[in-house]
Amino acid sequence: MHFADVLPLQSGASIRAYDLSYETYGTLNADKSNAVLICHALNASHHVAGVYLDDSGAIAPKSEGWWDTMIGPGKPVDTDQFFVIGVNNLGSCFGSTGPMQINPDTNEIYGADFPVVTVQDWVNAQARLLDALGIQTLAAVMGGSLGGMQALSWTLQYPERVRHAVVVASAPNLTAENIAFNEVARRAIVTDPDFHGGHYAKRGVLPQRGLRIARMIGHITYLSDDVMNEKFGRQLRDAANGHESGYRFSTQDVEFQIESYLRYQGDKFSEYFDANTYLLITRALDYFDPASAFGGDLSRALAKVTAKFLLVSFTTDWRFSPARSREIVKALLDNQRDVSYAEIDAPHGHDAFLLDDPRYMGVVRSYFQSKVAV
Amino acid sequence: MHFADVLPLQSGASIRAYDLSYETYGTLNADKSNAVLICHALNASHHVAGVYLDDSGAIAPKSEGWWDTMIGPGKPVDTDQFFVIGVNNLGSCFGSTGPMQINPDTNEIYGADFPVVTVQDWVNAQARLLDALGIQTLAAVMGGSLGGMQALSWTLQYPERVRHAVVVASAPNLTAENIAFNEVARRAIVTDPDFHGGHYAKRGVLPQRGLRIARMIGHITYLSDDVMNEKFGRQLRDAANGHESGYRFSTQDVEFQIESYLRYQGDKFSEYFDANTYLLITRALDYFDPASAFGGDLSRALAKVTAKFLLVSFTTDWRFSPARSREIVKALLDNQRDVSYAEIDAPHGHDAFLLDDPRYMGVVRSYFQSKVAV
Repeated sequence: MHFADVLPLQSGASIRAYDLSYETYGTLNADKSNAVLICHALNASHHVAGVYLDDSGAIAPKSEGWWDTMIGPGKPVDTDQFFVIGVNNLGSCFGSTGPMQINPDTNEIYGADFPVVTVQDWVNAQARLLDALGIQTLAAVMGGSLGGMQALSWTLQYPERVRHAVVVASAPNLTAENIAFNEVARRAIVTDPDFHGGHYAKRGVLPQRGLRIARMIGHITYLSDDVMNEKFGRQLRDAANGHESGYRFSTQDVEFQIESYLRYQGDKFSEYFDANTYLLITRALDYFDPASAFGGDLSRALAKVTAKFLLVSFTTDWRFSPARSREIVKALLDNQRDVSYAEIDAPHGHDAFLLDDPRYMGVVRSYFQSKVAV
Repeated sequence: MHFADVLPLQSGASIRAYDLSYETYGTLNADKSNAVLICHALNASHHVAGVYLDDSGAIAPKSEGWWDTMIGPGKPVDTDQFFVIGVNNLGSCFGSTGPMQINPDTNEIYGADFPVVTVQDWVNAQARLLDALGIQTLAAVMGGSLGGMQALSWTLQYPERVRHAVVVASAPNLTAENIAFNEVARRAIVTDPDFHGGHYAKRGVLPQRGLRIARMIGHITYLSDDVMNEKFGRQLRDAANGHESGYRFSTQDVEFQIESYLRYQGDKFSEYFDANTYLLITRALDYFDPASAFGGDLSRALAKVTAKFLLVSFTTDWRFSPARSREIVKALLDNQRDVSYAEIDAPHGHDAFLLDDPRYMGVVRSYFQSKVAV
């Protein structure tokens, strides 16, 4: 959808005109009261559910939406009942206006000139999409990780437009350690000689070295130590013959399975993800901090919230630990808000929010059926 | 000290001749029974205690040994009583033979041709140094982190030469997550265009970009989430005027104090540390796994140990967690060995092993006075 009106941004800058890519699933009911907005995290998109067909009409390989376990007909967020909207955020690289597109002011690719966008800006842009779709009030806004921050921000920026917020594996802000990991990833990208200050596209190169490192760091923080040990442990990729240890004794070749896995993830990511988008989205994560305008008091910050909440966290998630979700729960309870909270004892770390755990799915299904359903 | 004899390495390769840099503190007693060997971790050296004087005879700034809180006259490892030896490991970059030095086979700088060395190789080289110093038996071998692995390996490789092993903030091997962090750091170095396959010295360049990233990653894993929040939290480096948030809204400039700290640490490190050494030492960490020759059974692996042990771990150390030290304790107890264990409730993460915590210092002091002292 094209938006011709200027979007003022939190930074004071603005975007003159922009497009948002979105997908919808299910049917909007007559009184437009069954809409559920799904907000995405770092590297995801508007394609939250379902599959794509190729030209022959067959299901395209690996085309499942990123939250297809959660959303669809008969699934926890049941598209037979709800009208689900997935939207790609501004500054991303999956169709919505972002750094890889043409800056109408200069007729050149934005690159590093794309303005810094925040969670608040994304929510404002999403609200305009809802306006255009004729939806005044969301039955629910839902997201995991950075998507959960958007869901929380919705309840602050547009309290009257949100009945329920479902915030999964998220946090009220990043810790110093979270920011530190983001910063290392950004430095890897920015110091890649192919980055050229963010104007690599003009030069026909891509800072893929930096993106690979950024993605490898990310992957380590998405997984738990436990699940890494279980999946990979100290297994060698291909034990060398002729030495009892099985080691190849090389500092540069792959020795362990975990190395092979990380290199593969880094390579894959560096082929489809835009480096400037990576910088923008990690910065949006860093900046999110609704309590900061209230001297760090999250309870005061959430006083204006009227939505009902479901929060979910995962015990082994050390990126956005259960303690961070509990901070939100406490701040909502301090305001006597209606809040449900589930802490799932799952071994998968932060990644658990994308996985098909029956207890997790059951909690979300039950919440939507008993509380969100109209 | 120069060693003219070939040193066979675990990999099957060998080093023809080599030098080891070492320092000693205190006086070796008449029966040579009071020697304590200190093994260093990733980026440390033989300079474990004391200070250096500059040409004018004044104390050179920042010249304290890396474990000066622990070792010296009247300190927990009391050099009035013990003869302490610090030695720089083979492959390091502080004076012992390593990748920055001339390969006698080619008369060129070793660079990436320096052979892969392991904890076992280091211990063998250290044993030759003791031979040359006329020391048959160590009162104690001691180290933290990777240094603790060397101390543990001493008790397996030369059980009859070690009376006590003091193993601090260490582990019987690396987890998949540990290896993963090492691998990302190595990839940052190896994919730096200035790395040139490890032969950067010949070209007069240094892969400093990669070293910076490697060090930043390292630093995050040395600190605890708690101490990072306490030291840095979400503090801005220099709040921008004119915007209520205080943010500058930049993806490439420093916004938060933690970013500034990490960049500084990375810059500093990249100016003195050798990239090939970083690869070698992280690989030595990856490879260490005494239980592997016993089907992963650490108790069986430690059956031949005769030394008495002190193990120390720190509650917030997530790089080498207390659980990893307890694995060693359990394996020693399974063999009815004499083992003391202290778990210090310190907030500083892995770095705690280098800090001056009175409980930690007290435990080590007490162990040396009551058990090691002859």
